[in-house]
Amino acid sequence: MPLSWDQPIMEELRMVEEEIIRNTRSDEPLLTEIAMHAVSSGGKRMRPGIALLSFKAVGGTDLQKTVMVAAAFELIHSATLVHDDINDGAHTRRGTIAAYRKYGTQRALIAGDFLFVRGFRLGGLIQSEDVVEMVAEACSQMAESEMLQTVVEHDVALPFETYIRIITGKTAKPIEASAQVGTYLGGGTLDQIAGMSSFGLNIGLAFQIVDDILDISGKEKDIGKKRGMDIFDGKANLPLLIAMQDHYPNSDRLRKIYEKDEKTEEEVEEAITIVKSTDALEVAMNHARDLQHKSLKGLETLPESEFKDALRLLADTVLMRDR
Amino acid sequence: MPLSWDQPIMEELRMVEEEIIRNTRSDEPLLTEIAMHAVSSGGKRMRPGIALLSFKAVGGTDLQKTVMVAAAFELIHSATLVHDDINDGAHTRRGTIAAYRKYGTQRALIAGDFLFVRGFRLGGLIQSEDVVEMVAEACSQMAESEMLQTVVEHDVALPFETYIRIITGKTAKPIEASAQVGTYLGGGTLDQIAGMSSFGLNIGLAFQIVDDILDISGKEKDIGKKRGMDIFDGKANLPLLIAMQDHYPNSDRLRKIYEKDEKTEEEVEEAITIVKSTDALEVAMNHARDLQHKSLKGLETLPESEFKDALRLLADTVLMRDR
Repeated sequence: MPLSWDQPIMEELRMVEEEIIRNTRSDEPLLTEIAMHAVSSGGKRMRPGIALLSFKAVGGTDLQKTVMVAAAFELIHSATLVHDDINDGAHTRRGTIAAYRKYGTQRALIAGDFLFVRGFRLGGLIQSEDVVEMVAEACSQMAESEMLQTVVEHDVALPFETYIRIITGKTAKPIEASAQVGTYLGGGTLDQIAGMSSFGLNIGLAFQIVDDILDISGKEKDIGKKRGMDIFDGKANLPLLIAMQDHYPNSDRLRKIYEKDEKTEEEVEEAITIVKSTDALEVAMNHARDLQHKSLKGLETLPESEFKDALRLLADTVLMRDR
Repeated sequence: MPLSWDQPIMEELRMVEEEIIRNTRSDEPLLTEIAMHAVSSGGKRMRPGIALLSFKAVGGTDLQKTVMVAAAFELIHSATLVHDDINDGAHTRRGTIAAYRKYGTQRALIAGDFLFVRGFRLGGLIQSEDVVEMVAEACSQMAESEMLQTVVEHDVALPFETYIRIITGKTAKPIEASAQVGTYLGGGTLDQIAGMSSFGLNIGLAFQIVDDILDISGKEKDIGKKRGMDIFDGKANLPLLIAMQDHYPNSDRLRKIYEKDEKTEEEVEEAITIVKSTDALEVAMNHARDLQHKSLKGLETLPESEFKDALRLLADTVLMRDR
């Protein structure tokens, strides 16, 4: 059993890291600097990790294309984070100052576009129609769900289905695509590609729900940003949506705070306290656990290997993380 | 001789238009709406036009890939315009309200990202490493030059070389890439690819200089936006840079206005009047004319045809346009 999910692919992740850094370089020093700031904010590299483990788990050997597409996923992911932070007015990202706070909105916007270009360049260089479609489909759905998110902001009675649709596009689809592309490039069977897509999709959903939970109950020094940002921004957040349901105590007060356009820090703290006083965090965690169980079923299509073990470990880590 | 540069490729441009519109569709109606707003602001479709004419001029026959990449160029161009307008605080684009003014900054930013994704998807589907590199290189240089532009804003003594570097990346490179890709996909010789690259690059530079001139002397109803925006934003603009040179009358006053962070409408009008009182517009136009002559040399690699005639006409139109 590997000690951590990334242990069997340390060398490969290092290659991805090099590919990422190579692709932040430009003739404009400031652009390179902002791009580097964005990609080196200490992310978990989960998307590249899942792509590499899926590739290895189905016996893939010619690593080069998978390294390229894994780097592409991370570059595109970084691009969306830079743009998301502009849109959310976020102060920090993973404990580091958000790019647009450090360099200004204009420059961060340009650097985000640049990271998109460099990510799609790598994706396109693989010269596989299937890979281009998988990457583009995930990215299109990301944009769709971000747009949907702006439409339902501050909605106190957001249906569970809409919530799932949002987090599917926003978080789960890119993780699904990473698993899918890795399995595909590793020469996996159609059955394995379907299984690993399901693994990625469900573990992605679980990941986002845990993110929602941490937004409410995490320690700020662990999560690297202020708590209660979803409440503050009026963003869909599962424990919050649960606790706003009619039959929950103080749900009327919670809804009042949530639907306000402007909130004070005290109101956000009050909302957090209300959510915590209910079983909403527990109910949300049970959802995440169910999704994690579902994700493990997808692994059944894989032969036993240290890479499959690592994918199991990764699925555990998603639930147990505190940041 | 064709009546207008787009006359011999009307049918092909219609195919590109369909491809563009197909690629604005998404499952999120609001996203589709903003994407449509962005691509249908009545642009000149110069990039697709140049790609198609180059393709035809070297005898290309299998049109499909060129239609795809021509649509890709236009989708990416629209994406950058949406993001540029956010960065510039522009009110209108080609006479139509800027996307971010109509839909808000957040949504425009997301829609721009979406158009990028859809453009790069089309570019990647062609499955040519060369084409991906040409498109990505042009886009990287676009980002680099936009970044450089933010660095030199309000610089009253910008060297001519830096100005050329900015407009090369911002405007000329994507037009060069359109010509290059069209010639390449049409099966042109290396000589023809080099010739058409030079055509695209130089006509792109001339185009931007005419844009700069129109920003100062154009009619607002023709250019579809307020006059003097470059002065207002402190952007590099050739006639302005010329008139700010020491030996020009009132150049000190012009520099004073230009380097201000905040300017009144009266000051912008005063600056326009000063520039117009000099020969700066004429000097700039001579630069544009030189570049146009240089661009025509690139056409010498092509055999005579109605498509070559159309490219000549296009080069004339670039100089004679009033919008």
